[in-house]
Amino acid sequence: MSSDAWTLPTAQIAIEAAAILAFAVSGLIEAARKKLDPVGVCIVVGLSAFGGGTLRDILLDRRPFFWVEHSWWLWMLLGLSVLAMFFLQARHFAPTERAVQWPDAVGLGLFTAGGTELAMATGMPAIVAVLMGMMTAVFGGVLRDIVCNEIPYAFRDHRPYAVCSFAGGWVVIAADWLGLAGWVGLLAGATLATALRAMALVFDWRLPRWRTD
Amino acid sequence: MSSDAWTLPTAQIAIEAAAILAFAVSGLIEAARKKLDPVGVCIVVGLSAFGGGTLRDILLDRRPFFWVEHSWWLWMLLGLSVLAMFFLQARHFAPTERAVQWPDAVGLGLFTAGGTELAMATGMPAIVAVLMGMMTAVFGGVLRDIVCNEIPYAFRDHRPYAVCSFAGGWVVIAADWLGLAGWVGLLAGATLATALRAMALVFDWRLPRWRTD
Amino acid sequence: MSSDAWTLPTAQIAIEAAAILAFAVSGLIEAARKKLDPVGVCIVVGLSAFGGGTLRDILLDRRPFFWVEHSWWLWMLLGLSVLAMFFLQARHFAPTERAVQWPDAVGLGLFTAGGTELAMATGMPAIVAVLMGMMTAVFGGVLRDIVCNEIPYAFRDHRPYAVCSFAGGWVVIAADWLGLAGWVGLLAGATLATALRAMALVFDWRLPRWRTD
Repeated sequence: MSSDAWTLPTAQIAIEAAAILAFAVSGLIEAARKKLDPVGVCIVVGLSAFGGGTLRDILLDRRPFFWVEHSWWLWMLLGLSVLAMFFLQARHFAPTERAVQWPDAVGLGLFTAGGTELAMATGMPAIVAVLMGMMTAVFGGVLRDIVCNEIPYAFRDHRPYAVCSFAGGWVVIAADWLGLAGWVGLLAGATLATALRAMALVFDWRLPRWRTD
Repeated sequence: MSSDAWTLPTAQIAIEAAAILAFAVSGLIEAARKKLDPVGVCIVVGLSAFGGGTLRDILLDRRPFFWVEHSWWLWMLLGLSVLAMFFLQARHFAPTERAVQWPDAVGLGLFTAGGTELAMATGMPAIVAVLMGMMTAVFGGVLRDIVCNEIPYAFRDHRPYAVCSFAGGWVVIAADWLGLAGWVGLLAGATLATALRAMALVFDWRLPRWRTD
Repeated sequence: MSSDAWTLPTAQIAIEAAAILAFAVSGLIEAARKKLDPVGVCIVVGLSAFGGGTLRDILLDRRPFFWVEHSWWLWMLLGLSVLAMFFLQARHFAPTERAVQWPDAVGLGLFTAGGTELAMATGMPAIVAVLMGMMTAVFGGVLRDIVCNEIPYAFRDHRPYAVCSFAGGWVVIAADWLGLAGWVGLLAGATLATALRAMALVFDWRLPRWRTD
């Protein structure tokens, strides 16, 4: 950990909050696309937003959870879900399957950086910290897709997903090894992971496949 | 928490025990309906009975679990499952899909009240306590349905389910704010949640849907 | 716990390591059979290898996890997965559905014994310790099958699976009650569970079913 003790927690909370919002939006779009009932919308928004961070905190044995310490977030997401439902009803908004990919990519990057940094701060070895970052980033979306009865993107999509998170996590670790300020690593890692995922979507990058012959 | 320190734990354990039994019966009916093998029956009964409470205790970082502290319950449910299998084999009992709904509704109410009270007692904010109650109530049934290869009732049913639990949880919170004895809140919350769910089933209440046009 | 304090941890770590390897191989075969992409292969290998032990440690509130304390295992499994992919590509190796059953049976026995012993050492009642051993043994395979989009073996297979683990767990408990050295119980329990499962596969043993008439 670098010496900027007073800016790091702020940067961490900002990153976590932005990641939660991005995944909440991805959950909202997915729930609207599936025409879930109002309760289902709230559940999917909540699982998308808090699922990854909660799994990370259980594995790290870290309490309180974000949504316990900042419980007004629960009210906020509840309000957001209700407002969004009225708005979507009124506007005949029909989100496409691809619409969910962009907030998902942003959340992927932010949770990767935040999760890796947090795990590193509790003294985890580098490979474990990167893995924790990946799990934080991937698990919220996996829960969202399972509840919506989809095979999770993270497993289905042949374009790089977890790999982008893996790369972003190592940037956070490298920034720490180089002695850079914590927020620099957070920003660089989040940006790289999101940018890689966005490029994978735009340029249709593919992972190598098994030869079928 | 109110001052009746010596009656509250008794009321809590009684509520938890009744909830476990109700969900064990729901698991037994579902397993019989699906003609699972004997091992499958035991697994489904156990997951239905203890799944919700165990998730709640993991989230609250609370140990020992109910089934560790009172481990004779495991023997009892094992015996219950074996006895029930012999009985059901002999009687050509064919439970309908709806038969599982009534013990499920009772368990929903009891776990809602017990889980909310427990979370409140560990100092959680009100909205978090209500959420913990809901998760306790809903997760056992969700596990039961997943293992039986059904889309969980909680997500599939267009009649109110989690909403009944949400309402019951707030009754427990309100009773505490009003300074009523702990068992009053437990009983009122459990009764309201079960009654709401039963009425939703009887009168076929529906949640509002997305307009499809 | 018996008095051989200096050999038991060694025996436990050896059992755990062998179990992890066995399940890693089962995950590798399953992933190759499903022609998952490279990231999918690594995820399935990791979940199979570490899923069961991690669930057990969360339930026992035991930290650090095996893969945090011995984090070089993560690198080793990553390397193993990559090597295996090159090898399998080159050799046109086509594993059958049954190929996964043998490493799975070995892992079942080893995790049963290790998990039961560990839970007993933390002072759990006998039935709870056996249950923890079963969960350790079964959960890695269940995760493997869920991610590969299969109904888990443990639920689908009409041949005894969890029952073999249950029997093996009681052998570990009995060896402790008889005052035998810890490694004797570990070895006997693991051997019995694996042997029972192997016999169930070879002789096609069936669990009793519901009468259908």
